[in-house]
Amino acid sequence: MRLTLQTPLDMHLHLRDGDMLKNVAKYSARDFAGALIMPNLTPPVTTIEAVNEYKKRILEACGDENFTPYVSLFFKESYTPRFLEQAKPFISSIKLYPNGVTTNSEGGVTDIDTKRLSPIFEAMSELGIPLCVHGETDGFVMDREREFGAVYRKLSDTFPKLTIIMEHITTKESVELLKTHENLYATITLHHLLITLDDVVGGLLNPHLFCKPIAKTYEDRAALLTVALNAHEKVMFGSDSAPHPVSKKECCGCAAGVFSAPIALSALAGLFEKQGKLTNLQAFVSDNARKIYNITPPKKEVVLEKTEWTVPAAFDSVVPMFAGQKLAWSVVSQ
Amino acid sequence: MRLTLQTPLDMHLHLRDGDMLKNVAKYSARDFAGALIMPNLTPPVTTIEAVNEYKKRILEACGDENFTPYVSLFFKESYTPRFLEQAKPFISSIKLYPNGVTTNSEGGVTDIDTKRLSPIFEAMSELGIPLCVHGETDGFVMDREREFGAVYRKLSDTFPKLTIIMEHITTKESVELLKTHENLYATITLHHLLITLDDVVGGLLNPHLFCKPIAKTYEDRAALLTVALNAHEKVMFGSDSAPHPVSKKECCGCAAGVFSAPIALSALAGLFEKQGKLTNLQAFVSDNARKIYNITPPKKEVVLEKTEWTVPAAFDSVVPMFAGQKLAWSVVSQ
Repeated sequence: MRLTLQTPLDMHLHLRDGDMLKNVAKYSARDFAGALIMPNLTPPVTTIEAVNEYKKRILEACGDENFTPYVSLFFKESYTPRFLEQAKPFISSIKLYPNGVTTNSEGGVTDIDTKRLSPIFEAMSELGIPLCVHGETDGFVMDREREFGAVYRKLSDTFPKLTIIMEHITTKESVELLKTHENLYATITLHHLLITLDDVVGGLLNPHLFCKPIAKTYEDRAALLTVALNAHEKVMFGSDSAPHPVSKKECCGCAAGVFSAPIALSALAGLFEKQGKLTNLQAFVSDNARKIYNITPPKKEVVLEKTEWTVPAAFDSVVPMFAGQKLAWSVVSQ
Repeated sequence: MRLTLQTPLDMHLHLRDGDMLKNVAKYSARDFAGALIMPNLTPPVTTIEAVNEYKKRILEACGDENFTPYVSLFFKESYTPRFLEQAKPFISSIKLYPNGVTTNSEGGVTDIDTKRLSPIFEAMSELGIPLCVHGETDGFVMDREREFGAVYRKLSDTFPKLTIIMEHITTKESVELLKTHENLYATITLHHLLITLDDVVGGLLNPHLFCKPIAKTYEDRAALLTVALNAHEKVMFGSDSAPHPVSKKECCGCAAGVFSAPIALSALAGLFEKQGKLTNLQAFVSDNARKIYNITPPKKEVVLEKTEWTVPAAFDSVVPMFAGQKLAWSVVSQ
């Protein structure tokens, strides 16, 4: 059995920089036509120059693959409407991190005040620049996303023309927000469709499934599955694939992040097939994103085949999700 | 400032066996007059001979310290009233593990049926042998103890003369059960008085605070603190200190367990002092246990002094709770 995906997109991807970028970019470039690249480098990507330089480094790391990096700009309170107008042709979104909630999010926003930040959000609305948000408070780990719901509602109500992407949603409450607020959209990761907190701390501790936001309950996962498997028009695939060297994962005090890029399409095909929803995968991994972001990436066909393969223990010393396990679908060409 | 504790007891302790026993027993023997030792060895402690042999190995490992090991017997469905009568002089309790819920709990009970198991529980009631229970279902990790509440209620109602110890309780619902059910008692660990799930997975992942039952919410912790700090007569200290070699903790797929024995009294003194409850520590770490278990251990004075010290990175290659951190109270003599 074969499945051909037209121009698959990963709308939330961490490629990092330097050697790690060189190691991991090729896996995304092989399987996807393009991806929205997160700007939380050290220092973060906050200037037009930095965006263009980063794009160049990404393309170099991809080799001669047909792959479009859509780069997001790291949200800063100091941005002016004039700067945003200049930046618009070079960026695909602006990513807002509440200060300190995840890897390299220091320097994010401490208080998301819709009045103080109004000039930025108004300009983004006018220019049609989507706002991507890491939606977590600094509260109790299982409640952080739920608590952040109030900020999403306020942003959505105050700036109805702003396209707001709730990144890597993990709760049934976030799924509900999609239905009640017209300008809210969401990315969903592979791992949040597959795991719950039980997989992280319910048996042995599994650092390779430790991520932020943390995986939640079975009920939350069921809500995510419903919108993803049915390719609800307001959700799209974003892997949040986040490579860390093994030394930062299998250690005392592990970094958060699941490295799923090299296995994402295979695992998604398996999941969608098992649930009898294989025909919806195209919309979930491409069509919805193209509409939400209003983008037209160069065409790229990616073919999957139902042939079992074993995920390697590591890709360039980064341990992937499903390391050593068998997956039913393989990517056979691009 | 000095604090003298009379005959402090740790009513839930894992000492393991072999080299690990030899490494860790001395720390408990130094600070405590006695401890209830858990029987989940490989194979578990299920015969009178095994109990007595294990006691001997523990005493050898303690050197010439004045320390009483109270050994618990691993609950087996096959025990007869006659066997229990014979075992009674040698054991201090029977520990019931639902099958597979924690380290070495394979061979535990699959279905805690009060009818089928009635002869055992009736005999224990008659003989005055306390039943210690690891109270978790195999459900969602944050709900396991809450869900087990039904079993506690059934056991308590069906066998009103049986002393039932809810081991290492972690939820406000378990605290409530103490108040509504006369024959239910509980041990509380040091770590569950100090941490929540945030300390395990809220920032970086911390394998050294990964334990079963998993640490819960702030509300749950507050409920535990209330009964512990006030030395509620139905609760007693049980460290659940559980040593694992560092290779089983800082790895992919870490074992559950916090090693707190060598720092437990110091940390408890700090906690109780900070909350203005230092005078209640004696009851929490000794008097309550002596009444609940109806035991009279040989007297032993343990003196603590308010002198700061730094917890070593490891005790005999086992990483303790608070490794590398400063504690305000020191154990100065025994």
